[in-house]
Amino acid sequence: MVDGCPFCALAAGTETARNCLDDVVWRDDRTLAFVSPRWWPPTEGNVIVVPLAHVEDLYSISRAELAAVYATVQRVAIAMREAYDCEGTSTRQHNEPGAGQDVPHFHVHVFPRRRDDRLYERNAEFRWASPEERAPYAEKLRNCFADMSAKQFPGRV
Amino acid sequence: MVDGCPFCALAAGTETARNCLDDVVWRDDRTLAFVSPRWWPPTEGNVIVVPLAHVEDLYSISRAELAAVYATVQRVAIAMREAYDCEGTSTRQHNEPGAGQDVPHFHVHVFPRRRDDRLYERNAEFRWASPEERAPYAEKLRNCFADMSAKQFPGRV
Repeated sequence: MVDGCPFCALAAGTETARNCLDDVVWRDDRTLAFVSPRWWPPTEGNVIVVPLAHVEDLYSISRAELAAVYATVQRVAIAMREAYDCEGTSTRQHNEPGAGQDVPHFHVHVFPRRRDDRLYERNAEFRWASPEERAPYAEKLRNCFADMSAKQFPGRV
Repeated sequence: MVDGCPFCALAAGTETARNCLDDVVWRDDRTLAFVSPRWWPPTEGNVIVVPLAHVEDLYSISRAELAAVYATVQRVAIAMREAYDCEGTSTRQHNEPGAGQDVPHFHVHVFPRRRDDRLYERNAEFRWASPEERAPYAEKLRNCFADMSAKQFPGRV
């Protein structure tokens, strides 16, 4: 755990300036997924997936941690597609400030998508969502995970 | 292999309307990486990573294939950071036409980044690069892979 890292704090069960514990939708022995407080216009309820252990970026994450993170990204995308009634999903991640990485703890964004949402073109229009706005999205995802059977995860085997 | 799938064709060693064999920068027993013909303004030489086996999207890829794809994404990002002298890297992928997925074979984009490149805002400004434009980027990456020692891949162990 790195002092001052908001994702390490959340992984340790501490609420941060941006995230509360109710935002957490998935936790396993290597990863954490939570509703992001930063909402671009068409991405209400978008999710961030992180490794529990602090690692800065794609260059330095171990292959085992990387696989674990993307296994959770896959789970979240499947659940989001089901729970949000969106038309698709997109994932993205950035390495180094020169690429727009804002928190130096490896993280992957998972976005619900809709046709013609112009996600990229509207990149500057983000806002910070309140805990009250985030809560119903987190609840939908948690309920979806609870309902899912193993057969809905083709990647599990 | 799926008839008509350009990524399956390239994986099988067949040049396509958009890609030639010289675009290929990495191949292992599960994955292929090649210089993308589609260049957004700040992403000259961007790379696409695919599983050799046809699988449509993040929802349906097996966990083992997913881990293999991202291991190659990691290799490419490390090599790109070294070979292109960029200031960072970003990765992204889309699932379903509603999310802008244009080729229905799972693929991850790896982009070189520079501060203030406005990658997202300029999303509509892409163009198709010629084989001659792509060749020097592919060569830089292949040379970088050839030079890299195992210790430069922290994820290898």
